[in-house]
Amino acid sequence: MKNFISVADVDNIDALVAKALAFKKEALKSQTLGANKRLGLLFLNPSMRTRLSTQIAAENLGMKVIVFNVGQDGWALEFEDEAIMSGNTVEHVKDAAPILGKYFDVLGIRTFPSLQNKVDDYSELYIQQFMKYAGIPVLSLESATLHPLQSLTDIITIQETFREQRRPRIVLTWAPHVKALPQCVANSFAQWVNAWGKADFVITHPEDYELDEKFTKGATYEPNQDKALHGADFVYVKNWSTYTDYGRIYNNDPAWMLTAKKLESTNNARVMHCLPVRRNVELSDEILDSANSIVTQQASNRVWAAQAVISELLGNK
Amino acid sequence: MKNFISVADVDNIDALVAKALAFKKEALKSQTLGANKRLGLLFLNPSMRTRLSTQIAAENLGMKVIVFNVGQDGWALEFEDEAIMSGNTVEHVKDAAPILGKYFDVLGIRTFPSLQNKVDDYSELYIQQFMKYAGIPVLSLESATLHPLQSLTDIITIQETFREQRRPRIVLTWAPHVKALPQCVANSFAQWVNAWGKADFVITHPEDYELDEKFTKGATYEPNQDKALHGADFVYVKNWSTYTDYGRIYNNDPAWMLTAKKLESTNNARVMHCLPVRRNVELSDEILDSANSIVTQQASNRVWAAQAVISELLGNK
Amino acid sequence: MKNFISVADVDNIDALVAKALAFKKEALKSQTLGANKRLGLLFLNPSMRTRLSTQIAAENLGMKVIVFNVGQDGWALEFEDEAIMSGNTVEHVKDAAPILGKYFDVLGIRTFPSLQNKVDDYSELYIQQFMKYAGIPVLSLESATLHPLQSLTDIITIQETFREQRRPRIVLTWAPHVKALPQCVANSFAQWVNAWGKADFVITHPEDYELDEKFTKGATYEPNQDKALHGADFVYVKNWSTYTDYGRIYNNDPAWMLTAKKLESTNNARVMHCLPVRRNVELSDEILDSANSIVTQQASNRVWAAQAVISELLGNK
Repeated sequence: MKNFISVADVDNIDALVAKALAFKKEALKSQTLGANKRLGLLFLNPSMRTRLSTQIAAENLGMKVIVFNVGQDGWALEFEDEAIMSGNTVEHVKDAAPILGKYFDVLGIRTFPSLQNKVDDYSELYIQQFMKYAGIPVLSLESATLHPLQSLTDIITIQETFREQRRPRIVLTWAPHVKALPQCVANSFAQWVNAWGKADFVITHPEDYELDEKFTKGATYEPNQDKALHGADFVYVKNWSTYTDYGRIYNNDPAWMLTAKKLESTNNARVMHCLPVRRNVELSDEILDSANSIVTQQASNRVWAAQAVISELLGNK
Repeated sequence: MKNFISVADVDNIDALVAKALAFKKEALKSQTLGANKRLGLLFLNPSMRTRLSTQIAAENLGMKVIVFNVGQDGWALEFEDEAIMSGNTVEHVKDAAPILGKYFDVLGIRTFPSLQNKVDDYSELYIQQFMKYAGIPVLSLESATLHPLQSLTDIITIQETFREQRRPRIVLTWAPHVKALPQCVANSFAQWVNAWGKADFVITHPEDYELDEKFTKGATYEPNQDKALHGADFVYVKNWSTYTDYGRIYNNDPAWMLTAKKLESTNNARVMHCLPVRRNVELSDEILDSANSIVTQQASNRVWAAQAVISELLGNK
Repeated sequence: MKNFISVADVDNIDALVAKALAFKKEALKSQTLGANKRLGLLFLNPSMRTRLSTQIAAENLGMKVIVFNVGQDGWALEFEDEAIMSGNTVEHVKDAAPILGKYFDVLGIRTFPSLQNKVDDYSELYIQQFMKYAGIPVLSLESATLHPLQSLTDIITIQETFREQRRPRIVLTWAPHVKALPQCVANSFAQWVNAWGKADFVITHPEDYELDEKFTKGATYEPNQDKALHGADFVYVKNWSTYTDYGRIYNNDPAWMLTAKKLESTNNARVMHCLPVRRNVELSDEILDSANSIVTQQASNRVWAAQAVISELLGNK
């Protein structure tokens, strides 16, 4: 694996999931693989689970890790080609990235979308430039439009939870939120479930919250949340802002919050969320505090997902 | 030791002090105890000595350490049950703590009081919720009302300094300050000296600065600072805001600043302070720069105090 | 080497350069030198290259490293003697430094100049006080007037690049910038090239941008940039604010920006810059993107410079 930016970087999802679950059984089984290698984790935006789980994963492989918060610990970066840098940005990615490529063996980057400029965001301008200039494997810690470490965790969690000999029904449902959020987690989950190909996959959301077809193609769209939830084995709850008229909140109808009542028509569905979750806005307390919620298991699997990916980036096929 | 939140978590203070002093002699004597264990240090408020000394202590035991500044590196946390999270907090402790419990083996937490809501502060709402939901040993790095790592350090420092075959006279004196500060260090010092039981313990402060009796019971209160200092072997200098009418500054009389003149009536007392200290506000330069001051020794003992406590939390009886 | 604050701390520049180049060939050759030693990196100002390269260097020597951002992670420090600390500073360097000296074996410090008070800045008040009170070797990560790790890197880079049997012509040229910057990098580069003594050294800058003679003495001053550049083997580009009438921008003439056109009269000069660089303000894209630029090589040599210095501070002669 050369970089890890999207599911397209993965040859075999099942093999990667199996590798992650093997690390879950024996965290230190490849403790020398990363000896004398160093992972840089560059955060252009804040993080908790991603930062902690990725650092732990790399250390489990014997790597050294340095976390670096750009803007806070260092410099505001410039990404525009031929910029005359007389404004607030103090360093161009063309100058910063090659040096990070000299200091580290693998470079993890988190960079949120602007939600202002869809063309830039959906071209993945920032992380693409890091890949272009760093000269070492780049690991997405969530980029403008995708969050592949989260999605791999999600597939791992579904696979270890669902034991029946049939295709699970997986429902991705939009939920209300107080802020305009990226489409990353939803895009990425759709992309991975479709690529995995082992589920009946339904997406439900209010009008105006359509996602980019390049990620959702293969899923069934059901505008009625109640109908979508019927018979679900897994319900993935997530807010996102609008894609077509970009980065807005049009409808924040609290009726879309997932409640225990709504779960009744499901197949005793497991409820998933990437966290952090706004309780009683996206998801009710009663669900999060019930046995149906697998959000903690999901988040703790982040370590094994990251460990599997980093081991591949280190050349361990 | 299951958690370390107050002196009540300690079976035997003398044994813990002895353990700390043994680490001071040989820092790396238990270098494998924490192998493949990880300590998370979660700071909801800033820290220097506590952060550094605790990280060093854990590394001396062979642990890996990750420091995490909540709010700065990550998210503002919600602590209220049943909150409808449509405001500024982005994650509930009920969701964050269990995941930290999966990522770490021991969880250190610093959380200051609001100084607005005495009931919440004195119920130790924040750290209690972390203990309830994390599922792993919790180590206080200073909580709303107590600072037990500091107090253990204080007892260690007194014990290694005082060589006479009698009970030392220890005086805790209030000092002026420019800001309203927590009562933690004073509460905790009182609680530990009382539990230790090997000193004559006097507390002096202006009217209105009474501390909670549950911590001070056993100490003698002397309203006159000069009288209190008479014959003192140790003088612990510390500001705190009012407890009864909560979190205020009523009297900031500079006459309460400890000076060399005031030390004259003591038994050539050693002067202690938890640091950081406001020079020439709480304590005069002449004292801090003299041989009477043991504040550096005290702060450097923070490493050994933390190391003794963490070794117990790791199950090393 | 007792401290590393300026070139005056170095016995033999050539030997130090050779040591650095030996580490560049074999990074882990002294992997046990720093075993059970700890480096503290204290940033009173932000950093990217310095922070990362110094941490990596110390880890290559087997040291443990803790990075600490003062002000952000901790406290605002007081440096004035006899200050009555009733303002914003919460801890005096006299109290903080000795404790850092107990926690660490080597202490790295970054502290920028105020650019307000030339006497304080040029007395190196801050770093001198750390040296006075810490009681352990102090490593400058850039101080008010000098940046010796950068300058050592610069000498290393020149030495490994220039293969001819003659003295290279090195030109330090002022460049425009949008902010008032310290004189550190220019001062320090001048000080080191002069001490090294193996080059013909020319400095060019607009009127009013004279540097302190104690650093530049030995160099030739040429007010005309075109004349200065003629026949140059190395061109070091850097902005600095005024020294005499301190900390100002008098002339920000874009004609001083280094361009490919200006390079034509040089001896196909290698172009150097300490980074971060404002593209198309200090230096044009066409130069930075050309083979003449050695800025990435220069920045990556920061690791080996730091590693050579730290190994000396650890007593490895």
